Formats: sequence, structure tokens, C-alpha cells
Amino acid sequence: MQTLGYAAKTSGSALEPMAFDRRDLRPEDVAIEILYCGVCHSDLHTVRNDWGFSTYPVVPGHEIIGRVTEVGSAVTDFLVGDHVGVGCMVDSCQHCDQCHGGEEQYCREGMTQTYGSPDRVTGDITKGGYSKHVVVRQEFVLNIPDGLDLSRAAPLLCAGITTYSPLRTFGVGPGSRVGVVGMGGLGHMAIKLAVALGAHVTVISRSPSKQGDAEDLGAHAFLVSADEGAMEEAANGFDVIIDTVPVKHDINPYMPLLDIDGTLCLVGQVGPLDEPMTVPMIMGRRRVAGSLIGGITETQEMLDFCGRMDILPECEMIRMDEINEAFERMEKSDVRYRFVIDMASLSA
Amino acid sequence: MQTLGYAAKTSGSALEPMAFDRRDLRPEDVAIEILYCGVCHSDLHTVRNDWGFSTYPVVPGHEIIGRVTEVGSAVTDFLVGDHVGVGCMVDSCQHCDQCHGGEEQYCREGMTQTYGSPDRVTGDITKGGYSKHVVVRQEFVLNIPDGLDLSRAAPLLCAGITTYSPLRTFGVGPGSRVGVVGMGGLGHMAIKLAVALGAHVTVISRSPSKQGDAEDLGAHAFLVSADEGAMEEAANGFDVIIDTVPVKHDINPYMPLLDIDGTLCLVGQVGPLDEPMTVPMIMGRRRVAGSLIGGITETQEMLDFCGRMDILPECEMIRMDEINEAFERMEKSDVRYRFVIDMASLSA
Repeated sequence: MQTLGYAAKTSGSALEPMAFDRRDLRPEDVAIEILYCGVCHSDLHTVRNDWGFSTYPVVPGHEIIGRVTEVGSAVTDFLVGDHVGVGCMVDSCQHCDQCHGGEEQYCREGMTQTYGSPDRVTGDITKGGYSKHVVVRQEFVLNIPDGLDLSRAAPLLCAGITTYSPLRTFGVGPGSRVGVVGMGGLGHMAIKLAVALGAHVTVISRSPSKQGDAEDLGAHAFLVSADEGAMEEAANGFDVIIDTVPVKHDINPYMPLLDIDGTLCLVGQVGPLDEPMTVPMIMGRRRVAGSLIGGITETQEMLDFCGRMDILPECEMIRMDEINEAFERMEKSDVRYRFVIDMASLSA
Repeated sequence: MQTLGYAAKTSGSALEPMAFDRRDLRPEDVAIEILYCGVCHSDLHTVRNDWGFSTYPVVPGHEIIGRVTEVGSAVTDFLVGDHVGVGCMVDSCQHCDQCHGGEEQYCREGMTQTYGSPDRVTGDITKGGYSKHVVVRQEFVLNIPDGLDLSRAAPLLCAGITTYSPLRTFGVGPGSRVGVVGMGGLGHMAIKLAVALGAHVTVISRSPSKQGDAEDLGAHAFLVSADEGAMEEAANGFDVIIDTVPVKHDINPYMPLLDIDGTLCLVGQVGPLDEPMTVPMIMGRRRVAGSLIGGITETQEMLDFCGRMDILPECEMIRMDEINEAFERMEKSDVRYRFVIDMASLSA
């Protein structure tokens, strides 16, 4: 099937319309007409080759909401017309311990990413959701629960699961004390999800200017990290801190905020951190961990949870041809809190 | 009771004999004649005021083996003549969640260290095991199981529990894959204890020169961290790595050795680490943790385990008047693997 998308041809180029083919359906494949696609920081990093492994042309997009238009002969879980989602993965080996354990994101053979990965059958580089259509094997297609606003659900597929998974892994539930550092696409979802899980949620921020926004998102408390007295008073007060800061930074101010056996989980920065002091780790068995999206089963659980609890990202809808401007604004953190592309704005 | 010990009068002085008083027994106290005392790196750090909070005179020593000589009126657990041990703590609040949970080392009010801490009743600075006698409340006195060689048991009270506790906390048992970085006092105990717990144990070392020693200590495998090929092959191969390196260092080579959800636990370095990369943490939910000695219940469990399994540190026995030379040798890592002072060599 021919489709239309937006692609970057080189690391220096703007995104431009590009026609390309989606594969013919394999027996287990689902064809999806894309309705909405979220705009993740990873899209920008990949377009600009910030991580050094981009293959051009890049068609970004891994927060996909769409409608099933066709199913392969072996598809059992989806019908034409279903509203579905696709996140950061479109395939994995399906036979290793991690895949069997529902942790396809840690597949021993490496997951196939929604864009920029070689397809496991053809070797063609996958193309993402900045396009009209996508074809994905059914194991990586998610059900969108009835009642979840399709126009706002897309960011759940990456920002949602990326924060939901560590909250669950590190045992957040009613009464947990959760801190959130950074209040962008990931951080704002961490707040909403942790609140919905029953936690007491504190946004930890350098400046007091974001307090109102934090409260609007449901946070119960606000801690200014530049306020040494407040930071000292808050020591030992958190079971889990979700650190969404996407650049090199210093985790030392946050570590003493953790209670004994508490965990600071990094989900934003892919690269180095400033030199950490071991004292808070040793003196309270505190931990620093990382976490990568979540498995398919957990992603479905998160979507169902969001459907039940009516949790939705805050989105700013854009047209496909506004993407380059959106990238520029994203670089300046000028977005509350996630751009979503209305794919109806892209026509052949 | 008057006793005799070895003390440093200032951060620059050698240890010298010093007579001082041990308190009269409170109802819950146990008086102990010290037979052996291990020599820990912390002793040296405290004598030299490396951490900046030493109070002089310092009488170091927190790996104490002795014999009960007198018990207070409320003591129920010990009899005169019992062989007992005292580790790094001699008191705690006894009423916080941590104390109630058997984690006195993380007492909310701060544990009282065996030396260098203000006594909770008198405020006098505690004096450690480089002395003929000590008086300790019974809750912090350990039973030494019959059959455990008293002359070698002392280092279990710090080096033993410091490595046993994280092995247990992070779930090491039969079939676990454990790496040990650093093969000094702590590292050699980590090897022995992990082997006894049923783990497959690999020593990770910069140079191949220690392979024979590692095997002598029971390690099953040896990994040269300077050998990039071997390190790549070993990726994802460890559930837990115990990092005993006592100086600032780079954990980045070790993190990819951990399997998904694996933990590198720091027990040696108290201070900064080199800048860590987050990639192995995020891409495999790997963790960096710290751990501080262990609680009293767990310390007793460890001693009983060592008694049952006949696990003993490798010790080099010294006389009390050889302590300054021992400190010098320790600084050059010239010890296999722990000095133990024969307190019979100190007479009034």
C-alpha cells in the first residue's frame, strides 16, 4: 500500500512530505489508518541524529492512534474499525525470557523500534507514525479502551508507559510518596499517573514559577530544589522519584529526599550524569535505576487504567505541516505538554 | 572499670597506648573482655579524619570478638563466659520503624557507632575495640556460634555483614550470578559468602594477576576488566555485582555486565563516583545501590550461617603494638585480607 508521511532526508533537513510503501500484510499483520500521532523528544533526537545511529530518510512517530483498516489471515485480536494504538515497538524475537515475561522492550535480540529499526523479515528500516498508514504485527497493537478521547490518547503510548512502568515496577500505590523532577511530556504524565495510582505526588522544580501548573496537573505538593531549607526538611520523604530531566544533570540534590530503600528512576536523560555522591546510597540503601518504556501487556494495562480513571495527556493539536515549527518550540520547552499531530491534516 | 587501649590523639598522630574508663554497667549492659579486634579501613579513615568528623582521642575498632565478664541486672541473653561479638553499632533509638524492622544501621535518630559517636545517655564519645574491654548494651551484642574460630571471626562483624547484607537484600541464592569488584577485606568476604549462598561467583579485576588468589578464595570465574572482548562477552551475565572499591572510580564498565533488573551495590567508596552513563540503566532497568553494614538480626544470621558453613575471613594476626605499621601496609593494600589484633598482646 502506498502511503504519505513526513520524513527527514538528512540530519540537517526539515521534515518534508514523502510518499512511500507500507508492506503487504503478513498473516499476523494489522493495517492501521493513523488518526493522531504524538511528538516525542526522541523524534527530534533521531531526526537530528543526536544519538549517532539514525538511518535516513527518517519518518518519526511512535505515539500512534489509529483505526484498523485491514487484518491479516491469522489475526485474531482485531477487527476492521477497531481503535488501536502503536507505541515505540513493532516487533521483538517473541521467544526469549524477556519477551515471554512481557518485557519485549528488553528483548534479548533487541526490539524492533517503530521507526529507524531494520524490519525482522525484510531488513527494511521501519517508518513511524508521521504518516497516514502503518502495518504492524498484532502482538504490538494495543486496544484503545472505549471512551478514551482518541485525540488526546497518543502520548500515552510513549510518555504514558515510560512513566507508568517505573511507578509500577517500584511499587507505587495508595500512600506512596512520589516525587517528579521535570514537568514536560514525561513529567506531566508521571504526575497524573502517580496521582491516579493513589500516591502523594510532589513536583520538585528549580523555580517556584511552575507551582500553579503542577497543581493544575493534580500534584499535591511542590518543592523548590533551590530552597535548601525546604530540601532539608523534605529529606527521607519519598519512596520513588521519577526523574524526567532529558539532559546531563546532578542527581545529588534529589538522592537524600529518598527514604531508606527508595529509588530514583531515570527516564529522561540518555547519556552521562554529573558525578554522583555515594553517601545517600550507602547510608540509606537508596538506589538509582533506569527504565525503558514498558512491555506490551503493561502498556495495555496502562491504557485500560487511563480509560477507567479518565487520565489523558495535555495536548496541543497541530497540523502535519506545522511539525518543523513544533520541533523548534519543543527545543525551547514551549509546549504544554505534548504536541499531537492531527493526521487528517495530511492529505495525498 | 579502667581499661587500656590504643588511641590517636590528633589526626596526625600515631596510635599510642592510652588508659581510660569504661562505664559502670547499666542494667542492660554486657561487659566484654576483648580477645581479638579486626582492623578496618574505616579505622584508618577516622584516625586521619578523612571524613572530617573525628573527635579525638580516637580509639578505633569495630570488629570485636570477646568474652563476657559481667552482665547488668536486666541482661537476659548473655552469661559470663559467653563468646560474643560487637560490630559497628553499640546503640540506636530502638523505637523507630527501622529499629523495629531490624535495620538499626538506618535508625531514624542515627545509630551510635562503636567508636566516635556520642553515647546516648552520657554524651561521652564512644571508644572502640582497640582496647582490653568494652561495655555494650545487650541488644548490640552478638553470639558467636560454637566452633567458629575466635581468632578469625572478628572481620565478620564489619566486612562480613557489609557484604552479606546486600547479597541477601538483592536476592542472592543458589544459581545467582554474582560479580565482585575489588578483592580486599570486603571483597574477599563477598566472594566467600556469595559462594556459600550457592551463587556462581566471578571476580572482576583490572589485572589477571589476582586470578590465583580469587580461585583460592573460592571464586568460580575471573574476568579481566581491561580485556574488552571478555567484558563484551560477559555482558548481561550478572544478577548482582558487589563493588568494594574504596576510592572514586568509574562504574560504567561494570553496568553492562548486569543482566536486566540487575543491581550493582556499592559498599566501598564513601564519596563521589565518576560520571555514570545512564544508557545501561535505562536500556535494562539496571540499578546502582548502596548498602551499609546490616542490622543486628541479620548480623546474627550471618554469624550463624558462617558457623554452619565454616566460613572465615583470611586474617593476618598482629600484636597491638604493630598497629601503626599495619595501617601503613593497609594503605598499600599489603594485607591478605584483614589484619586482626590479638588483644592478649596488649597488657596493662
